[in-house]
Amino acid sequence: MKINKNPKVGVIMGSQSDWEVMKNTCDTLRFFNISFDVRIISAHRTPKRLEKFVNDAKKNNYEVIIAAAGGAAHLAGVTASLTTIPVLGVPMLSATKGIDSLLSTVQMPAGVPVGTLAIGKAGAINSALFAISILGIKYPKVLQKLKKYRSNFEKKIPKKPS
Amino acid sequence: MKINKNPKVGVIMGSQSDWEVMKNTCDTLRFFNISFDVRIISAHRTPKRLEKFVNDAKKNNYEVIIAAAGGAAHLAGVTASLTTIPVLGVPMLSATKGIDSLLSTVQMPAGVPVGTLAIGKAGAINSALFAISILGIKYPKVLQKLKKYRSNFEKKIPKKPS
Amino acid sequence: MKINKNPKVGVIMGSQSDWEVMKNTCDTLRFFNISFDVRIISAHRTPKRLEKFVNDAKKNNYEVIIAAAGGAAHLAGVTASLTTIPVLGVPMLSATKGIDSLLSTVQMPAGVPVGTLAIGKAGAINSALFAISILGIKYPKVLQKLKKYRSNFEKKIPKKPS
Amino acid sequence: MKINKNPKVGVIMGSQSDWEVMKNTCDTLRFFNISFDVRIISAHRTPKRLEKFVNDAKKNNYEVIIAAAGGAAHLAGVTASLTTIPVLGVPMLSATKGIDSLLSTVQMPAGVPVGTLAIGKAGAINSALFAISILGIKYPKVLQKLKKYRSNFEKKIPKKPS
Amino acid sequence: MKINKNPKVGVIMGSQSDWEVMKNTCDTLRFFNISFDVRIISAHRTPKRLEKFVNDAKKNNYEVIIAAAGGAAHLAGVTASLTTIPVLGVPMLSATKGIDSLLSTVQMPAGVPVGTLAIGKAGAINSALFAISILGIKYPKVLQKLKKYRSNFEKKIPKKPS
Amino acid sequence: MKINKNPKVGVIMGSQSDWEVMKNTCDTLRFFNISFDVRIISAHRTPKRLEKFVNDAKKNNYEVIIAAAGGAAHLAGVTASLTTIPVLGVPMLSATKGIDSLLSTVQMPAGVPVGTLAIGKAGAINSALFAISILGIKYPKVLQKLKKYRSNFEKKIPKKPS
Amino acid sequence: MKINKNPKVGVIMGSQSDWEVMKNTCDTLRFFNISFDVRIISAHRTPKRLEKFVNDAKKNNYEVIIAAAGGAAHLAGVTASLTTIPVLGVPMLSATKGIDSLLSTVQMPAGVPVGTLAIGKAGAINSALFAISILGIKYPKVLQKLKKYRSNFEKKIPKKPS
Amino acid sequence: MKINKNPKVGVIMGSQSDWEVMKNTCDTLRFFNISFDVRIISAHRTPKRLEKFVNDAKKNNYEVIIAAAGGAAHLAGVTASLTTIPVLGVPMLSATKGIDSLLSTVQMPAGVPVGTLAIGKAGAINSALFAISILGIKYPKVLQKLKKYRSNFEKKIPKKPS
Repeated sequence: MKINKNPKVGVIMGSQSDWEVMKNTCDTLRFFNISFDVRIISAHRTPKRLEKFVNDAKKNNYEVIIAAAGGAAHLAGVTASLTTIPVLGVPMLSATKGIDSLLSTVQMPAGVPVGTLAIGKAGAINSALFAISILGIKYPKVLQKLKKYRSNFEKKIPKKPS
Repeated sequence: MKINKNPKVGVIMGSQSDWEVMKNTCDTLRFFNISFDVRIISAHRTPKRLEKFVNDAKKNNYEVIIAAAGGAAHLAGVTASLTTIPVLGVPMLSATKGIDSLLSTVQMPAGVPVGTLAIGKAGAINSALFAISILGIKYPKVLQKLKKYRSNFEKKIPKKPS
Repeated sequence: MKINKNPKVGVIMGSQSDWEVMKNTCDTLRFFNISFDVRIISAHRTPKRLEKFVNDAKKNNYEVIIAAAGGAAHLAGVTASLTTIPVLGVPMLSATKGIDSLLSTVQMPAGVPVGTLAIGKAGAINSALFAISILGIKYPKVLQKLKKYRSNFEKKIPKKPS
Repeated sequence: MKINKNPKVGVIMGSQSDWEVMKNTCDTLRFFNISFDVRIISAHRTPKRLEKFVNDAKKNNYEVIIAAAGGAAHLAGVTASLTTIPVLGVPMLSATKGIDSLLSTVQMPAGVPVGTLAIGKAGAINSALFAISILGIKYPKVLQKLKKYRSNFEKKIPKKPS
Repeated sequence: MKINKNPKVGVIMGSQSDWEVMKNTCDTLRFFNISFDVRIISAHRTPKRLEKFVNDAKKNNYEVIIAAAGGAAHLAGVTASLTTIPVLGVPMLSATKGIDSLLSTVQMPAGVPVGTLAIGKAGAINSALFAISILGIKYPKVLQKLKKYRSNFEKKIPKKPS
Repeated sequence: MKINKNPKVGVIMGSQSDWEVMKNTCDTLRFFNISFDVRIISAHRTPKRLEKFVNDAKKNNYEVIIAAAGGAAHLAGVTASLTTIPVLGVPMLSATKGIDSLLSTVQMPAGVPVGTLAIGKAGAINSALFAISILGIKYPKVLQKLKKYRSNFEKKIPKKPS
Repeated sequence: MKINKNPKVGVIMGSQSDWEVMKNTCDTLRFFNISFDVRIISAHRTPKRLEKFVNDAKKNNYEVIIAAAGGAAHLAGVTASLTTIPVLGVPMLSATKGIDSLLSTVQMPAGVPVGTLAIGKAGAINSALFAISILGIKYPKVLQKLKKYRSNFEKKIPKKPS
Repeated sequence: MKINKNPKVGVIMGSQSDWEVMKNTCDTLRFFNISFDVRIISAHRTPKRLEKFVNDAKKNNYEVIIAAAGGAAHLAGVTASLTTIPVLGVPMLSATKGIDSLLSTVQMPAGVPVGTLAIGKAGAINSALFAISILGIKYPKVLQKLKKYRSNFEKKIPKKPS
């Protein structure tokens, strides 16, 4: 099943150490045949790289941006402050069990929202799925594929534990 | 400035007591001239009403759903389990200062995401703005209006406290 | 000691990964000779399976339902919204040490209660024992066996650590 | 509609200050025409009173006990350690927003469960409703009344906020 | 250095699994040559054993009682409710990192105090030291030994890390 | 009933604003006819005053010290580091609902214990009662009075809420 | 007492609503005769204003920057990412009692520190005092004045509560 | 590149077990060629050693002090109470995931600030960097080196995860 390759997602994360979790985002996007770019960008250590990433977003056809960070996780919020593209935040597990990452990502002030997903791996997968549901309102084929994926749950999940 | 009136947002909340906060969502949507329906639907007390709401979503042209609830805030998650339309969650303030509402809304398992906004009023306003940014990837006029709104911040926010 | 086999407990859990903890529930029920069915049902990924499970509850003679889930643990609450059978909730350990699971399970709104037990293994065992105490108000033989089980604690627990 | 008056619920609370919340429990039981006794019993300050209450439980026909306490809320757990009657715990709001009350009530060790409800008023109402659902497995008329009560939600809850 | 052997400490813990931590209490008491009895007593599973322990406290010359428990840690509080002997509480590490144990132990209502020490091993050692400081107000030789022990810190703790 | 006036308690608090809570400590000590001195001493702002207070402790016949502080509540711990007299800590309510005060007071490292009471008013009253139970191991008349006080609970606490 | 007026502090805050707390910072700086500029700058809503503020920092002779924000409090961290001037963070009280503001401010990744002060008013005052202690290492007169201020505590704080 | 060796940092930690984390502080200072002394000093177990350390601070040319501690982490606060030299606090990871260490360090009362860094290793590194930024306002060569270090981030951090 071929889908429109034009929509593209930008996936950024604060450091190399987030990759083990965030490759689940990329695997999910790839499974849905959605194009994406993946970059390491730290809101604090590479602010210029972030600025360039956002400035090039239009040129790169990003329609959704996924940003993952841990601790004082400012990456999603700062990205959102620089663009009107929907920004999804994925809080990474941390010393405080991700509570700092979650609160730093979700508690944005009125005016600049970040759509926040669950802490860690579930959030990484779901950031891709949520990006896909957003793209689905514009690209019927993406929506179609998402519906099929969702309808498979009943079949794929075993009925009894073993 | 006239914008396409077709896109529509469904706004639901768990109880009448959430309205004081959630009218900020509706005010923001209205400010952007986005059509919306607003309903009280409790995931726990009116599950059939929720089912009907979701079944009618397509007919009603909802392209985004905003769901607000407090405590064991299941409304956004249960709605998301029944549709592939993007569902945004707004955690209400509660006895435990919204921590229960936030965790119940954001910590969704892999497969069924809820894009979660901040606790309380900021989240209510931001749920509208995030819905608008989602609609913006499809409707250029919506995006245009959002950009204008955002660019006004620098002007409107006073430079010095008083 | 033979007991009435008619009373039956429905045991459901959100995913296969909960089984390692929840088999303690089943072992405890089996020890008390209480019949039970065990199923994997996700409130979010298999909502139709949940609906069917609840619809068949009467036919299956469930007098108590035990529901275990983690993270945004909606399973017990959504089950409770669909039935008047007593629903017991067992919060699973999670990234946030079960706090999200506990709050999502216990903080139900007025109208639809979930009787919540402890996080993890202790809660799994206790959900069975609490189901048994509920059945005990109707089935004297179950009550009798529970009393015997409880009176054994003083004997079985060693008096000094070693 | 007349129902069997025999089943009886014992309602206890740690101090007079819990009464404002716990009268919601009694109002709900009364609404369902369920007999109940209400007592102030502190696990810490009146341990003998608690012992007597539990010893008289059978004589008093208690089939469910509801125990409310705040802070280091031991009342439900200590009651449960002395009886095989199902004990429901209601955590009171406290300085730490009920988190201490909740954890002290719900985190019982394997062997002695407390079925715990939400913090504060919702938990107070729900403790009555959960007691009623337990009684419902034995008393068909109670169950019937509960079903009717629950089916009224769809009618009584307004469809739109105002 | 010989000290009065009469003062005695009662050390109780909720389960065998607490022993690995609580043997630090006993080692510390032994180091100070303070007599003690150590018992496994669960407030919930062996309430009669607890009652007997408290009734025999005078006969056994306990002048301080140390009680360790985890989760809904009621042991110290329930012991304190049954005696006027000073009761020290040691919260055990738990699924929620000891927060439940700590709050269940320390948040006692006005009238029945528990002197609470730190979570886990530090609290286990300190419960012995605090018991010794209490005994020190009555037994000069105990106080003398405690002062010597404390004055050794400056010598024993290395000045530089290595 | 006359009791030995020699034992004396030192009551210190971090600031004037703690007095409204801590006068409950003094009222309780006065009720038991226990002598006490009360001082404002900040571990951080008046460290020399603290040093003098501890140096004069023996001269002043303090047998127990009660220290109350909020936020980064170091007062009890620092006092304990300077003396072998038993130090009781009372965490004050604070912006974070006393959680900072509690953890700063109770989580002392091995070697220097603080016997910690509940947050706020209950802890203030209980610090006096715990001091009295400590004095009771040395002064029979104090113990006698405490026993009488405790036995009054059953009489004074009303049996039914009103 | 005249002090060098050259050192200057930049004080920024996320919104007008922070001013009531942050004027304590300014009052303290003024008391020490330290020059300062105060601005409202939101990391999210006015990112360009922040960029300009940092670019002009050298020209404006800022030697320390104090940044206050609440919720997902990114202001201090983002400022620190753009300059090597020491940045002090003041977490504002918020719906979650300042826990989100604190964690968002303090949990910065290795490479870009924020020196964080207490939540709310105490932190506002202390941010000024900490800035002054930093300036004190360079400006002897500032240090002198700080020493005098600190030595006044013993005199100004009353010895007994009233 | 040679820099002025005169400025010196005092690095203290509560126990040997903090060294594994705090050697990152020393490595960072060494990398910047900043002189430092490192000591184990416990606010509670070696209060005299702390007093001596602070009294010798001037003689030792300390211009910044870094203090690391865990649990009821009083070290930074007590040090700050004894000196006007800027004190930086590093909260160590602990049983409660560093939350106790963080709150004990940061929540200082008005009058005596501690500039607090992140929990654990990131905070250890950042305490050195923050000390360096403070020294940078006085020593141009230090500032120059810090700027170079910071500008290297864009180069050194890989652009894509691998």
